[in-house]
Amino acid sequence: MIGRRGATRAARVTRVRPEGAEPRSGRRTEKDTLAVEEPFEIRLSWLEAGVRRVEPLAVTMRTPGADFELAAGFLHGEGIVRHADDVVELTYCSGPDEQEYNVVEVRLAPGRTVDTDGLRRNFYTSSSCGVCGKTSLEAVGAIGCSPLHEGPVLEASLVAELPGLLRGGQSVFETTGGLHAAGIFTADGAPRVVMEDVGRHNAVDKAVGRLLLDRQLPAEDRVLVVSGRASFELVQKAVAARIPVLIAVGAPSSLAVDLARTFGQTLVGFARGGGFNVYTGGERIA
Amino acid sequence: MIGRRGATRAARVTRVRPEGAEPRSGRRTEKDTLAVEEPFEIRLSWLEAGVRRVEPLAVTMRTPGADFELAAGFLHGEGIVRHADDVVELTYCSGPDEQEYNVVEVRLAPGRTVDTDGLRRNFYTSSSCGVCGKTSLEAVGAIGCSPLHEGPVLEASLVAELPGLLRGGQSVFETTGGLHAAGIFTADGAPRVVMEDVGRHNAVDKAVGRLLLDRQLPAEDRVLVVSGRASFELVQKAVAARIPVLIAVGAPSSLAVDLARTFGQTLVGFARGGGFNVYTGGERIA
Repeated sequence: MIGRRGATRAARVTRVRPEGAEPRSGRRTEKDTLAVEEPFEIRLSWLEAGVRRVEPLAVTMRTPGADFELAAGFLHGEGIVRHADDVVELTYCSGPDEQEYNVVEVRLAPGRTVDTDGLRRNFYTSSSCGVCGKTSLEAVGAIGCSPLHEGPVLEASLVAELPGLLRGGQSVFETTGGLHAAGIFTADGAPRVVMEDVGRHNAVDKAVGRLLLDRQLPAEDRVLVVSGRASFELVQKAVAARIPVLIAVGAPSSLAVDLARTFGQTLVGFARGGGFNVYTGGERIA
Repeated sequence: MIGRRGATRAARVTRVRPEGAEPRSGRRTEKDTLAVEEPFEIRLSWLEAGVRRVEPLAVTMRTPGADFELAAGFLHGEGIVRHADDVVELTYCSGPDEQEYNVVEVRLAPGRTVDTDGLRRNFYTSSSCGVCGKTSLEAVGAIGCSPLHEGPVLEASLVAELPGLLRGGQSVFETTGGLHAAGIFTADGAPRVVMEDVGRHNAVDKAVGRLLLDRQLPAEDRVLVVSGRASFELVQKAVAARIPVLIAVGAPSSLAVDLARTFGQTLVGFARGGGFNVYTGGERIA
C-alpha cells in the first residue's frame, strides 16, 4: 500500500471532562487520532471507435483505503458496471499534484460504452444523497432488478449478534470513533468483508465492490449489516447486489421500507442491545 | 401547513427482544413511527432579458418540513444566494402528480442571474457528499469567506450542555429515533432554531435557511450544534453563514479540522456525557 493515503491521522486535541470524570476531570491537551476525509474522483474510460475516452464521473468525500473497491461498488450501484468482466483495469491516475492517490480511473472492457449525456442527467438528479423517489424506483427496475429470491433464513439470535460482529471487524473506528461500517456476512454469521468510511454510502460501496471484484455477485445468500441508519439509497445498493437481508443498527426511513417491500427484501432496524425491529420480509427471520 | 407532506409516517413493525428484556421479551407486532424520507427538488428561476428562466438545480432526499428553509439554506451554502433580498419568492411547484410538495422554485430578485454552466460543473463535482478538497477550500474563499471574526467566548459548562438542549428541541426524533438535528444557539445557550432531517446536511441547511429568511445572517455571535459527526461540508456551511463555533456530538473528520483551522472556527467534537474535545479555536472556550 506504499504511497496510498492513510485512513487515520494524528492530531492534538484539548479534552474537557466534567468534575468527577474517570480517569481524569478537567482540561488537558493530548494526542488524538482523526478519521481521514479526502475527496475521491472516479473517472470512467472506454474505447470509442478505437480511441480511449476518459470522463470524470463523480467526486465523493471518502476515507482512503479500498479505493478500487469503492470505485467498483459505486459503479455497480449506479448500474454502470454489472460484472467483474465489465472492468479491465482499475488504476490510480498519477499526476504532478498531491491528489495522486485521490483519483481512480475505471477502464471498461472493449465493447462497453457509456451514454455520457444519460450519466450526466443521472448524476445531476442524484446529487447529495439519493435519487428521486418515484423516478429512482423506476431506475432500479431499469438496471435489471427483479424482486429478490427467497434467500436464507436467519436465526433471530444471529440477527441480534451481527452488529457486534460488525463492530469487531472495524479497525479504524476503535481509534477514531468516527467511521461508519458495512459488513457482508454469510447466513451463519461468518464475515466475508467489513469496510469502513466517513460516509455511510461509501462503506457499502466498498463492501459490494470487494464482492464484485472477487466475482461473488450476485450475493443472493448473503446479509448486509450497516452501522447506521437505513436510507433509501442503501436499500437500493443492496438490491442491486441482490442481497436479500439488510440489517441496520439505526432507524430505517419511510422510503427505505417502501423500497425493501417492493423488492421483497428483509429490512431490520434498531439492531442493538440484543433486540431488533423487523420492517419487511419477516419470513427470513426464524 | 395544509397540503404539505408529513415528517413521520405510521408503520407496522415486528419487535424482537431478548429474554429478560423490559418491558417484554419475545416477538410481537405493533405500531411504529418512521421518519419520512422523500425526494426534494430545488429549482432556480431568474429573469434573463425580461424572460423568466427556470432551471432544476439539485435533488436531495429529505424529511418534509421547512422546505423553503432547506432550499434557501442550500443555496446559501453554495454561494448562490447570499442575502434574503436575493430571493423574491419561494413557492411549491404544483403539478398534476403526487410530487406536488416535493418541488420548490426559488425566484431570484431582478438583476440576479446565474451562470448555469458553472453551476453544472459545480454540482457535478460536489455529488454525493462534498466538494473536492483543495478546490473547494478555494471555492469557499471564492464565495467571499474571510477568516471568522472573534465571536463569542463560551463557558465550558454551556458547551457541555448544548447537545442536551439540542435534543430537547427535537420533536420528531423522540418518536422515530431516526433523525439528525442542527440547532443554532446564542452564546448563552438560548435556542434560535432547531431543525431535523434524515440528512445531516439538510438539517444544517434548514437551520441556516431559517436565519437567512429572518435576515439574521451573518450569524457572527451564534453557535451551531449538530447531532452527528462534523464533516468537511458542515464546517463549510457554517463558515459560509459566518458562525464562529461548531459543536458536534460525533467525531470530526481530518478535513473538517483543516477547514475549521483555516477559517479560525472553533470546532468541538464528541460533546457528550458532560465532556467534549476541542480541535480548533480553543480561545473561544472559557
